[in-house]
Amino acid sequence: MDIKSIIRKKRERKELTKDEIRYFVGKLMKEEITEAQAAAVLSYIYINGLTEDEILYLSVAMAESGDMIDLSDISQNIVDKHATGGIGDKATILLMPILAALEIPVAKVSSRGYGISGGTIDKLESIPGLKTDFSIDEFKRNIKNVGACIMNQGLNFAPAEGKIYKLRNQVACENSLPIIASSLMSLKVATGSNKIVFDITCGKGTYIKTYEDARRLAKLLVRLGKALEKEIACVITNMNQPIGYSIGHNLEMRETVMALKGIISQDLSDVVETLGSVMIALATDNKDLNANVQMIREVLQTGKAYEKFKQMVASQGGNLSFLEDPELFEKSKFVIPVLSTESGIVESIDADIVGSIATYLGAGRMKDTGKINRTAGITINKKIGDTVTVGETLAYIHTEDESKISGTTQNLKEAFKITNKKINTKSRVLEIIK
Amino acid sequence: MDIKSIIRKKRERKELTKDEIRYFVGKLMKEEITEAQAAAVLSYIYINGLTEDEILYLSVAMAESGDMIDLSDISQNIVDKHATGGIGDKATILLMPILAALEIPVAKVSSRGYGISGGTIDKLESIPGLKTDFSIDEFKRNIKNVGACIMNQGLNFAPAEGKIYKLRNQVACENSLPIIASSLMSLKVATGSNKIVFDITCGKGTYIKTYEDARRLAKLLVRLGKALEKEIACVITNMNQPIGYSIGHNLEMRETVMALKGIISQDLSDVVETLGSVMIALATDNKDLNANVQMIREVLQTGKAYEKFKQMVASQGGNLSFLEDPELFEKSKFVIPVLSTESGIVESIDADIVGSIATYLGAGRMKDTGKINRTAGITINKKIGDTVTVGETLAYIHTEDESKISGTTQNLKEAFKITNKKINTKSRVLEIIK
Repeated sequence: MDIKSIIRKKRERKELTKDEIRYFVGKLMKEEITEAQAAAVLSYIYINGLTEDEILYLSVAMAESGDMIDLSDISQNIVDKHATGGIGDKATILLMPILAALEIPVAKVSSRGYGISGGTIDKLESIPGLKTDFSIDEFKRNIKNVGACIMNQGLNFAPAEGKIYKLRNQVACENSLPIIASSLMSLKVATGSNKIVFDITCGKGTYIKTYEDARRLAKLLVRLGKALEKEIACVITNMNQPIGYSIGHNLEMRETVMALKGIISQDLSDVVETLGSVMIALATDNKDLNANVQMIREVLQTGKAYEKFKQMVASQGGNLSFLEDPELFEKSKFVIPVLSTESGIVESIDADIVGSIATYLGAGRMKDTGKINRTAGITINKKIGDTVTVGETLAYIHTEDESKISGTTQNLKEAFKITNKKINTKSRVLEIIK
Repeated sequence: MDIKSIIRKKRERKELTKDEIRYFVGKLMKEEITEAQAAAVLSYIYINGLTEDEILYLSVAMAESGDMIDLSDISQNIVDKHATGGIGDKATILLMPILAALEIPVAKVSSRGYGISGGTIDKLESIPGLKTDFSIDEFKRNIKNVGACIMNQGLNFAPAEGKIYKLRNQVACENSLPIIASSLMSLKVATGSNKIVFDITCGKGTYIKTYEDARRLAKLLVRLGKALEKEIACVITNMNQPIGYSIGHNLEMRETVMALKGIISQDLSDVVETLGSVMIALATDNKDLNANVQMIREVLQTGKAYEKFKQMVASQGGNLSFLEDPELFEKSKFVIPVLSTESGIVESIDADIVGSIATYLGAGRMKDTGKINRTAGITINKKIGDTVTVGETLAYIHTEDESKISGTTQNLKEAFKITNKKINTKSRVLEIIK
């Protein structure tokens, strides 16, 4: 067995064996094949695809390249939620205390952000003192005690996935469904999740551009789940505008705390309720999604979810005064309104442009070792369906760097598509596939 | 312009512009793109090909990545000969003094060997003292004074080609015709050759496996030559057995000196006469190839070619006593006969197996920084068309390492295909394309 014959085989659209895939992943980890050779394999996968067996072998091989957790000693009903990437997405942070308040344990292993997609870990760390570096034992103890814990993916879970993730970004294979599917599954195998709800975002600002591709990925993940004895459901959501009202770390944490206190945007609420209801259905005998939505609304309205969030933040060392008074989250020196030059109704907000500007302002990492600026970001003032007149504020730019204001103001305005026609504001949620 | 959009464009089978190709080569040289990204470009070129314009742009961009020679001040009739790789090929070293003896100047920029193809520079350096590290001025002076000079390609000619050559080997793109063609042309552009005869070897032990691919490459090179105002002719030769009687550095130099003294195998003689006659036709008004072959035979028979070789070796600092007495070339400690277990006629000798064994014995580099063993190699005792009986010697293994004897003996025997049928020994030369 050698890497060149594996490259040739995939180039000739032949199915790789389990051993060949293990060889590829193993040699990549030992640096006994070059990144160029791995890139060639990815490129031919992009063109020729992978069979479902190949995806399973690749998922497991990547999972086995690092640490593996077994959570079955805590509960059989632990549920995991994973989004494939979105702009302004704070649903995970909301869902953890909501589910825990309903006595459904949530174990979340998450990563830092890279590129225009923010990372949940990074966002949570806007709460001073909050730590996510746990040993597996501490992680389990927190879940037992509080009902929810989030830990940093670090370098130990599926490190091969991390290597391939970086390579797939380098060689423009971000939108290859078999590569995305095996990446996602490898992390779920490594982190011991047996019940998983995937939020498959599609549209601008995310890897999966079309609804068709999102459906294809969702169905693939459900089938892969069956083969790996995992219960998987997928919620396909539309990324035709950023999620909620803010993009950027301090801004999003502030919005999250406010949401747990009852002030929440319609589209964020839609996503949280749908994802949450599907998570409850996976973890419990409550299969009626509408009833589950009612349960979610109740823990939000009664403040139980907020109380659970406080317990969770406290157990992870975070400073609770930032929850009591979200105005404590530091703000940027410059908060500049972006004014509309048109009148009409907002039809869409290009999440790719918004994400790129936020990254440029410092709210995203362009290198995996890069720093983020916690105060930088964007707040959206007009969402899809809102009427707007000339001179009204569409959004605000938050930055410490005066020189970045003029260029981004013009660009951000162009992210807003304004129409004269009537808009039917549809739910962000397109379909549930399980 | 960015590398990911170039990768996508080639993946979608679109034609890259001159600027995009220059960007790719330039960024690769500056290490501002990764080898993984370059490998992705090569992989998609493998699948989707390159247009002739793209090949031209790539050739020129790689040439312009390093030093360029202009030889027009010496002569308009300097001719270059380049083989695409063969096992036991010593034709270049023979042709240089032959042509120079006919007062046709030969300027040869050559490389070291890598993998199973030996390098002309490496072979010549078996003559103690012989140097090939020249400045361009010294190179030109030698050509003026002696009529022929060979210099080491070093790192300065088309360094981008060198980088891409290594990558293409890593990612199994060795047999991609557009990549081969652009590599060849880039070196010819950089080293200022305007009249070139390519020896396109095909079969086992060389990158181009089929006659059809060899013809396709030959026609492509001739067309590229026209676009670059170079006169190009291609001789397609069959690699159905190693060339001549020996593989390995000292062994081949010994055979070369003997050939210049009149003792030459039929197949080597065929190749040298054909290539030489085409080279003469390119460089002079003598277009009759048969007449040119007569001229070549004359300079060999009269010893003029041998005298010219002595001048050439002397001008490059080589010890002439090794020419006077080729027995001075050091031999291996072990010279082991490989005996036939069949009787019949030799139908073919697998040059890939022979080359691989020679490399394993130490006669080839497996890394570009690897050392070669000058005495190691193989001598062929029975060539295609020779009758052989059980117990007769097919070949000899030359090695310093006793532990390598038993395995290689068996393998080498298997390279010989013995038949009971009559064999029509055809010329190694299959076709001339110009």
